[in-house]
Amino acid sequence: MDTTDSRVLFRRRASRITVAAHSFGIFAAILLLVWLLHYREGIDLDSKNAYRIFNVHPFLMLVGFIFLSGEGMMAFKTVPADRVVRKFVHMFINLISLCLGIVGLHAVFKFHDKQNIADMYSLHSWIGMGTFCLFILQWLFGFVLFMFPKGSASTRASALPWHVCGGRALLYMAICAAETGLMEKVTFLGLNHGRELLLINFTGLAVLLFGLSVDLSIALARFT
Amino acid sequence: MDTTDSRVLFRRRASRITVAAHSFGIFAAILLLVWLLHYREGIDLDSKNAYRIFNVHPFLMLVGFIFLSGEGMMAFKTVPADRVVRKFVHMFINLISLCLGIVGLHAVFKFHDKQNIADMYSLHSWIGMGTFCLFILQWLFGFVLFMFPKGSASTRASALPWHVCGGRALLYMAICAAETGLMEKVTFLGLNHGRELLLINFTGLAVLLFGLSVDLSIALARFT
Repeated sequence: MDTTDSRVLFRRRASRITVAAHSFGIFAAILLLVWLLHYREGIDLDSKNAYRIFNVHPFLMLVGFIFLSGEGMMAFKTVPADRVVRKFVHMFINLISLCLGIVGLHAVFKFHDKQNIADMYSLHSWIGMGTFCLFILQWLFGFVLFMFPKGSASTRASALPWHVCGGRALLYMAICAAETGLMEKVTFLGLNHGRELLLINFTGLAVLLFGLSVDLSIALARFT
Repeated sequence: MDTTDSRVLFRRRASRITVAAHSFGIFAAILLLVWLLHYREGIDLDSKNAYRIFNVHPFLMLVGFIFLSGEGMMAFKTVPADRVVRKFVHMFINLISLCLGIVGLHAVFKFHDKQNIADMYSLHSWIGMGTFCLFILQWLFGFVLFMFPKGSASTRASALPWHVCGGRALLYMAICAAETGLMEKVTFLGLNHGRELLLINFTGLAVLLFGLSVDLSIALARFT
């Protein structure tokens, strides 16, 4: 097999990982919805039931923030268009995920207010808030540097590795935040057996596999 | 600034990240030791106190498994020797981390036996055990392919991206396992304020920053 053949094979494998990433993301979202709608109280930001308000938080942080930002990261590989269009889609999907993330964070603070629970004491909240603040910075720097670039081409070229690697680091931080959040909720609920626990664990695994496959699909592109 | 200058600058920055990785790892280990020795029961695999046995688990999984395997990943950048020597150091450090990980896992099963607690029900245990099994496979494949290679040079070349990306994915899985483990323990202990909680949260942050900086120091090398 010559070098060209092996490159084609490698690219085909890398594109399969992108398909796997979409699938794991959708699978995680479905499992989470089944959990929140069937086993828990449902999802409603304006409910009188505080737990329905709380449930907006995992829903929007996973489906709105993590899934969309992961898809935004892969837009350069998945959108069949010019580089300029793909860059715009990348920026726009990440903007939507940022906005939905803000609503998701609002939901958990509203829940804490209603229940008189202290804010920002857990490792989950530290990792989650740290990730979100850095994500906003990453989006702003990306917007200024790459969407309306005033600096030189060499400035953009030297900033690109940090933007790419920073984005991937943020995805992993978001995955860590999701896993610690699920872990915290399961331990609060005192679940140590049964279907609900299995459902939450499989949701956690699907989120992890989504993060790994998004990262792998981008990392492997560096080797082609 | 010409291309050579910017590459030198870039490599200097990347090497600073390697120093940061060592520091975060050592910092996490110190914080964990302070927690286990000062706030908790101490560390002893043959104790009559079940909690002293349990404490061997976080100690060996973090200092033995995560810290050493992260250092093993960076050995290609940090060991000032020939490529063959660095490859051997990389393999050997990962072998030690694997052995210490086995003792760390033994500790938690021994604790569960003593306390009549079910094994392998939590998301933490699923992620942790999944990571550890895949780590053993990764080590074995790496050993067969790269230490005593019987295949062609092209087989090794095409396996390398998967070995590198797989290793980085495993590091992140291990970090997720550590964070969910700390989160589970904190919630079990019912900690929602105070110095012990702060100590555990900072340990979790240091572990996360260790993982991110190890990954970044390797990822950035791809751009040089």
